[in-house]
Amino acid sequence: MTERLPTLADIEAARARIEGKVKRTPVMRSAVLEAEAGAAALCFKCENLQEVGAFKARGAASAVFALSDAEAARGVVTHSSGNHGAALAWAAALRGIAAHVVMPSTATAAKQANTARYGARIVLCEPTLAAREAAAARLAEETGAVFVHPYDDPAVIAGQGTCALELLEQAPELDLVLAPIGGGGLISGTATAVKGRAPATRVVGVEPAGADDALRSLLAGVLIPMERPDTIADGLRASLSERTFAVIARRVDDIVTVSDAEIVLAQRALWEALRMLIEPSAAVPYAAIRAGRIDVRGLRVGIILTGGNAEALSVS
Amino acid sequence: MTERLPTLADIEAARARIEGKVKRTPVMRSAVLEAEAGAAALCFKCENLQEVGAFKARGAASAVFALSDAEAARGVVTHSSGNHGAALAWAAALRGIAAHVVMPSTATAAKQANTARYGARIVLCEPTLAAREAAAARLAEETGAVFVHPYDDPAVIAGQGTCALELLEQAPELDLVLAPIGGGGLISGTATAVKGRAPATRVVGVEPAGADDALRSLLAGVLIPMERPDTIADGLRASLSERTFAVIARRVDDIVTVSDAEIVLAQRALWEALRMLIEPSAAVPYAAIRAGRIDVRGLRVGIILTGGNAEALSVS
Repeated sequence: MTERLPTLADIEAARARIEGKVKRTPVMRSAVLEAEAGAAALCFKCENLQEVGAFKARGAASAVFALSDAEAARGVVTHSSGNHGAALAWAAALRGIAAHVVMPSTATAAKQANTARYGARIVLCEPTLAAREAAAARLAEETGAVFVHPYDDPAVIAGQGTCALELLEQAPELDLVLAPIGGGGLISGTATAVKGRAPATRVVGVEPAGADDALRSLLAGVLIPMERPDTIADGLRASLSERTFAVIARRVDDIVTVSDAEIVLAQRALWEALRMLIEPSAAVPYAAIRAGRIDVRGLRVGIILTGGNAEALSVS
Repeated sequence: MTERLPTLADIEAARARIEGKVKRTPVMRSAVLEAEAGAAALCFKCENLQEVGAFKARGAASAVFALSDAEAARGVVTHSSGNHGAALAWAAALRGIAAHVVMPSTATAAKQANTARYGARIVLCEPTLAAREAAAARLAEETGAVFVHPYDDPAVIAGQGTCALELLEQAPELDLVLAPIGGGGLISGTATAVKGRAPATRVVGVEPAGADDALRSLLAGVLIPMERPDTIADGLRASLSERTFAVIARRVDDIVTVSDAEIVLAQRALWEALRMLIEPSAAVPYAAIRAGRIDVRGLRVGIILTGGNAEALSVS
């Protein structure tokens, strides 16, 4: 990595670019959940209510609206297991340009439909990173479209960081901010925003135990890609990039992991307490609180609920 | 009816009573739904994110905190097919008093669980209004508890009206406000708040075609109870009372009806566009827009999403 790390100024610039395009999502609280956890406040930032149902709209809009007119005219391309693809399709439609999205054939029907809705061209491929990257590279070459990586992209990371900026304004004086870790785009933007704006606030990332490359990489001091992720949290199976690993190593205070069973219990508890139907990946940070992996007693905690694109859920 | 109709002052007093106890729920919009409808704005007031997952928390808290200490000490009792029972149980727990809730044996598992969660005593009965009223009267006699009717109660109506007061502040200059009609408590509070605060704003009530007692009563000029309601919108099967009929006749500008099929399509559309999982009753007002029963072209419209206590929903 010779590139500089993202800065608060990058995030503020992204915020200006996407102002009026993404939603200022609400922050919700539950007295029941706060009492159970013994927390002074649990402030859930509801990105499940964001455009395309996920925070990914922020990063995608940030990247698409950072393009010059000449670049934009060529369209955009990406590979994505779901929400980033939908978000890029949405952002491209907003700018009136073409989007090509490579999706693994295992992507859920809800996520495929969510992408197709915005008029993107969807290309299915084998569910391996190599196949996804090859297909996206081929599309970029054929069409001239600009590749927008789901997380290994400065404009995307800056866009994701805008969520934490809003959270800090909506819920002041947080002791702690929690976000899940997949490829590391959200946690990188979050940690950069929080450390830039409120340095005393701790930032903790939460991973599924079956996709714990961030924790293992931090312990080893070197990036260890996730070979065979095994978790219900389909949005968090990606591996860190060198870029996001560098940000996490510098700016994230701690990383904890949760089991799939804990994720499912957390997803259900959030439905019961908040009437928020979120996808398993989005339940991961709260799962760490509920399972006692993080001590939040007496603390004011911000929690990013990342997405609501659940496939199906029996809520009775 | 010799009693006076509810006033804006009653609603403002209720608001002061329940301040800090209920949530100020967010207002959400969707560019996609607005474009489809040709509306200038569709402002969804998300009472599905309210305490106990429904606007009923407002009326219940208004009634419970209007009791004197001596009255409150005797506890409260009601009969309810669901959300009002849960709301009364929640409000009673907040005041630290006992709650007894008569529920029809047909009440959904989710709604029974939602009531039991707050420590209320649940008494099941036959699913007829007569059986419910008899069981509640018996409980009131046995325990001395104060009966709090789901809608035929001035304090309850005033509490429900606080939702529209908030909506008018969060989404100024509305041309039109829509709410569903069941027993008429919400629409009575809504119409009173809107006509008191913004007289030029129209108020339209929406009913399921299979529970259209408000429309038929208005056309006949006399209250016609709903004999055999037949609709998927289980929260809207109740009949108007003389009190709510009187308010509707004076203050509601129009009433339209929607079919169950239209309700289901609206419920799904709201999930897809807003990632809000709501119960069928809550989809009824938007169903009227989607089905073309109300012309909203060019208008700024407020829509109360009444509750999120869906039993189960396949969202894929």
